[in-house]
Amino acid sequence: MSKTSSIVTIAGGVGAAKFLRGLVAARGEQAAHDAAIVNVADDFHLHGLAISPDLDTCMYTLAGDVNPQTGWGRVGETWTVMDELAALGGDTWFRLGDRDLAVHLYRTQRRSHGASLTEITAELCRSLGVGIQLLPVTDDPIETRVVVEGDGEIGFQDYFVGRQHSVAVKSLRFAGADTAAPTPETLDAIGTATTVIIAPSNPLVSVGPVLAVPGVRDALVDRRERTAAVSPIVGGKALKGPADRMLRELGHEASAVGVARMYRDIASVLVIDHADAALAADIEALGMRCVVTDTIMATVDIAAALATTTINSLD
Amino acid sequence: MSKTSSIVTIAGGVGAAKFLRGLVAARGEQAAHDAAIVNVADDFHLHGLAISPDLDTCMYTLAGDVNPQTGWGRVGETWTVMDELAALGGDTWFRLGDRDLAVHLYRTQRRSHGASLTEITAELCRSLGVGIQLLPVTDDPIETRVVVEGDGEIGFQDYFVGRQHSVAVKSLRFAGADTAAPTPETLDAIGTATTVIIAPSNPLVSVGPVLAVPGVRDALVDRRERTAAVSPIVGGKALKGPADRMLRELGHEASAVGVARMYRDIASVLVIDHADAALAADIEALGMRCVVTDTIMATVDIAAALATTTINSLD
Repeated sequence: MSKTSSIVTIAGGVGAAKFLRGLVAARGEQAAHDAAIVNVADDFHLHGLAISPDLDTCMYTLAGDVNPQTGWGRVGETWTVMDELAALGGDTWFRLGDRDLAVHLYRTQRRSHGASLTEITAELCRSLGVGIQLLPVTDDPIETRVVVEGDGEIGFQDYFVGRQHSVAVKSLRFAGADTAAPTPETLDAIGTATTVIIAPSNPLVSVGPVLAVPGVRDALVDRRERTAAVSPIVGGKALKGPADRMLRELGHEASAVGVARMYRDIASVLVIDHADAALAADIEALGMRCVVTDTIMATVDIAAALATTTINSLD
Repeated sequence: MSKTSSIVTIAGGVGAAKFLRGLVAARGEQAAHDAAIVNVADDFHLHGLAISPDLDTCMYTLAGDVNPQTGWGRVGETWTVMDELAALGGDTWFRLGDRDLAVHLYRTQRRSHGASLTEITAELCRSLGVGIQLLPVTDDPIETRVVVEGDGEIGFQDYFVGRQHSVAVKSLRFAGADTAAPTPETLDAIGTATTVIIAPSNPLVSVGPVLAVPGVRDALVDRRERTAAVSPIVGGKALKGPADRMLRELGHEASAVGVARMYRDIASVLVIDHADAALAADIEALGMRCVVTDTIMATVDIAAALATTTINSLD
């Protein structure tokens, strides 16, 4: 890698956060040139607070501050506010720890003063010591809406946390995406990066909303020869979350081949796990190069090796 | 007192809360028939949260849950969220403890679901075990705005907490009061109470906004013969807060006589402290009966005796 290389990663929540932590470990000081473009369609308001789950998960993980048991929330968290809210009969289905709450208070207050989510995220990353830029794909509100079996359209967090993604999904839409604008930082990062990576995130509800913001998919298509995706599906299963079920429910194949079909227009390489090595020929038949490696990020070292392999796959 | 007597108290923050605690102690089970109509012009939004300082101070005090050191906030409070918010460089000039925050989260979430402040306050009072009804004077937004020396118009909390009321006040207004409606519960409580009491609260910024809500002053004028006020000024000083300075700065007399001039149209009795006994004749010359007693509520027993004396002053 040259000194001036820069890497931009399209990111969702826990899987992307682990990948980014590996990337930062692999890149060392060069990570200061890197950015992640993060899904914001899971963002929502609760108790009046502006909550950005994917940005926070990436931020806490990169700050070395994530709860290692859950992969989200802050380490050493206390629950005084939630416990008291429960005693008052308030809504506690979405658990917000005391330290986590401070971030939402900060974000909400700065929003009320007119700061953009991009600015606020940069401020939080500085305070928390995050080594790469985290860029919301847009500063405009977009919202994943989920039509679920038997219950009509609900919000993403209601599906994902409230119902623990245990209900069949009939369709998805990204409300507001049509009129949202990508931030200049997002388009600039994609346009100028040495390497673009699509993190092992849910293709439908993490990467999908990023691609739905007008201009982002086209910008990625232009960088196809410098873009590699990492399959979030290993052996037909999502490593975390409902991506496998959701892919099947929405007419996709829950396999690395299914992922290749979704990304072939925007990525020239698909990185898959050893478990899926037999699928390499089918993926290459779709016009993508296929790289086989360890993709299950059980440790930071494995994640770092995965990041290095992914970066090098484009050379 | 007959079994069916009911007492309604016009209330602000700390002084009113102490008075109400005494009233509940004096009334025993009969307090279940009583209500306080509480100022909401200090209410504001911070970090996206709906904060109602006077309602909360009354609520926490009556729940036996107020911080005895400060007279506001909750007892046994922890500060995890504020400490973390400070670490993030957030606004911490208005200190919100963890247990206190739960109340603001509850209120804000219920507001976002369309519940009125009156309904939410009743729910909180039930959860916290408050023995009398606390009624916001209005469910509409009203806001005390303060023109201060050298700095133009600022919000009340910016004056009161942010600048610790140490700056001269040139004028006050209650934004939104013209178009606010008193709640039906407020007008009903004033109209049907056996006794109306104006608590020892700041006449300008605690009682003033209650009177500024259209219809409330007229309702009180109608009940003048059954209304007693307790002077918040003793020996020319406010027991707490800036009432004395503010009275002088705005052209009033900072004395029990000055208070009598402000309340003579709505109250037939003024209860004053022994320290001001010499002012009784001047107060009676203004057309009010004057009752002299201990008004410095150092203990619940003194507050209870003050409440009993005030109630009996109308018989």
